[in-house]
Amino acid sequence: MNRYSKEELQSLVAQLAAGVGVPSGDAALFADALVDADLRGVPTHGVSRLNIYLQRIEAGLIDPQAELATVRRAGSVLSLDAGNGLGQVQARKALDLLILLAGQNGVAAATIRNSQHFGALSWYCNYAASQQMILLAMTNCEAAMSPEGGYEAFFGTNPIAASFPTSKGFPVKIDLSTSIVARGNIIAAQKKKEPIPEGWALNPKGKPTTDATQALLGTVLTMAGHKGYALAMMVELFSGVLSGAAIGPDVGSMYKNLDHKQDVGHFFCLFDVKAFLDYSEYLGRIDKTIDRIRASKRRPGVDEILVPGERSARKAAINLAQGIPVSPETVAELEHWCSRLHVAFNCHEVVCRP
Amino acid sequence: MNRYSKEELQSLVAQLAAGVGVPSGDAALFADALVDADLRGVPTHGVSRLNIYLQRIEAGLIDPQAELATVRRAGSVLSLDAGNGLGQVQARKALDLLILLAGQNGVAAATIRNSQHFGALSWYCNYAASQQMILLAMTNCEAAMSPEGGYEAFFGTNPIAASFPTSKGFPVKIDLSTSIVARGNIIAAQKKKEPIPEGWALNPKGKPTTDATQALLGTVLTMAGHKGYALAMMVELFSGVLSGAAIGPDVGSMYKNLDHKQDVGHFFCLFDVKAFLDYSEYLGRIDKTIDRIRASKRRPGVDEILVPGERSARKAAINLAQGIPVSPETVAELEHWCSRLHVAFNCHEVVCRP
Repeated sequence: MNRYSKEELQSLVAQLAAGVGVPSGDAALFADALVDADLRGVPTHGVSRLNIYLQRIEAGLIDPQAELATVRRAGSVLSLDAGNGLGQVQARKALDLLILLAGQNGVAAATIRNSQHFGALSWYCNYAASQQMILLAMTNCEAAMSPEGGYEAFFGTNPIAASFPTSKGFPVKIDLSTSIVARGNIIAAQKKKEPIPEGWALNPKGKPTTDATQALLGTVLTMAGHKGYALAMMVELFSGVLSGAAIGPDVGSMYKNLDHKQDVGHFFCLFDVKAFLDYSEYLGRIDKTIDRIRASKRRPGVDEILVPGERSARKAAINLAQGIPVSPETVAELEHWCSRLHVAFNCHEVVCRP
Repeated sequence: MNRYSKEELQSLVAQLAAGVGVPSGDAALFADALVDADLRGVPTHGVSRLNIYLQRIEAGLIDPQAELATVRRAGSVLSLDAGNGLGQVQARKALDLLILLAGQNGVAAATIRNSQHFGALSWYCNYAASQQMILLAMTNCEAAMSPEGGYEAFFGTNPIAASFPTSKGFPVKIDLSTSIVARGNIIAAQKKKEPIPEGWALNPKGKPTTDATQALLGTVLTMAGHKGYALAMMVELFSGVLSGAAIGPDVGSMYKNLDHKQDVGHFFCLFDVKAFLDYSEYLGRIDKTIDRIRASKRRPGVDEILVPGERSARKAAINLAQGIPVSPETVAELEHWCSRLHVAFNCHEVVCRP
């Protein structure tokens, strides 16, 4: 895989977004979101998605110049409408509004309706952590999981995330889908013609399957059975029902529905650490907690105990130094869009010097 | 099992609590919390716990007359100290403060330090739902689970809960521990001399075990592996670290540590539905979501699809009509305390007329 510097990759993505009509400041935010996912080792939410966003903008299914509108403001709560703009741009602007409100009131919350797939929740949570705040974030997404006992896709893999600032050089970052496994793992098994483990998915008739193709036609199971169902429901109620966005199977598919918008809903709740504790006291408490967890006795065969977020922070440090890996398929898509939008492909391969 | 009316059982529990020095209004709240858990089919968090609370009060390990103190108020955030009082009483009083704040600001949050095991989170969440609000609640508790890769108990079974008002006669209630299974299930297997399924627990050396006795000496596993670890960490950071309470293994055990206090930490975040949407619009959206989920296609052998909270609401309706079942062991404890505190055992068995 080719590796590119963060700056060059960001600049290219921003130019391509601008090329389909995204205002330059918004294009820079959008590029930051995508490249950040690749930087942290989550390429499924990174530049590999640029192609579909650009396609949807060109098809008129995303408004590249949408303004974020406040539908209702009540105290420290904002009910926002993304105007069918890019999810990353609108949600990041929403977060900036919340940072002001949480700074005043200690806590602030927002729903965002009429949005798109908005990438990795970590991008928002980590930004909040850099502001000495804790963001709890959720989003609904296109249907993939059934309620417990059912086999029709109703919920998306409905993720939940939060980051907590530390003085360890990285925030503690919780970011998980409520499915037992990402759909990407099933797609990977299908490509390798391998079976998937029992308990991952149901076939289109609602029976357990280890056949990846049948699984992709059916539904992914929730994590931990009824507990994952309950959490997926919670995420749907906060981000779908409470926001005024589409709910469950009414959320459009980014890849399949090339005729109508997605209307995804997001939910943010932001806490200012200083409203609860002196910031230095908080840092002492979380740092000590991390130290104690790392020093726990290890199971046989385990070399090291990490806290959530530590692995991706290490990956980011490596990719920052050695360049961010981009798959050949994604490079080809970038080249296609460069040619189409008359943008120079100004990313140079980083040559690692080990 | 004997069945008693809700009113008589509450009255008895309140009298016993008053008998060890709990002020009468607080005793009524406390009794409501315990009996509500039995009513909803969660006797592990109900009257079966009265014995240990009373013991701890008599031993000076819980202050029955503690006042809830505001350590810090910043806008819509309260940092509270329970003064080592009864968790149920102090947390419910905290919730009443938050209801006022959320009514003004749309959202309000509180941490509570220096508290005890405070029973079922549902009691708080359902009360909030009755006020047309959504409560997100978390608490840390005595250590039972290790971090992923470890085998020393660090986290409690750290639950997370939220209830959402509906017009279906019950709130949608999410309430789950982040462990793969409640410790109670392992204790039950031990009593029946049955093995436990693989994947539930580790023995004291950190190896997987199906022996219930070894499991109880070791650690319970998190739900869904690293995802449960991440969620348990989130709950610990919100309710332990951010509150100023004890963290991880420093949280006292209600049953084992009969020489020092627990110092449990709780976290509440309360949302006023009306700040986000017109309440009638919200109700229409959540009711329709429930209807659609219930109408989902069912897996082979499944008779009915329920939403989270529906099963316990049905149980509560049955127990309200037929009397609340109380185990012979718990009846014996109640009789012991009645005798000791000179309280008449004024609960009459409800005779069911089927």
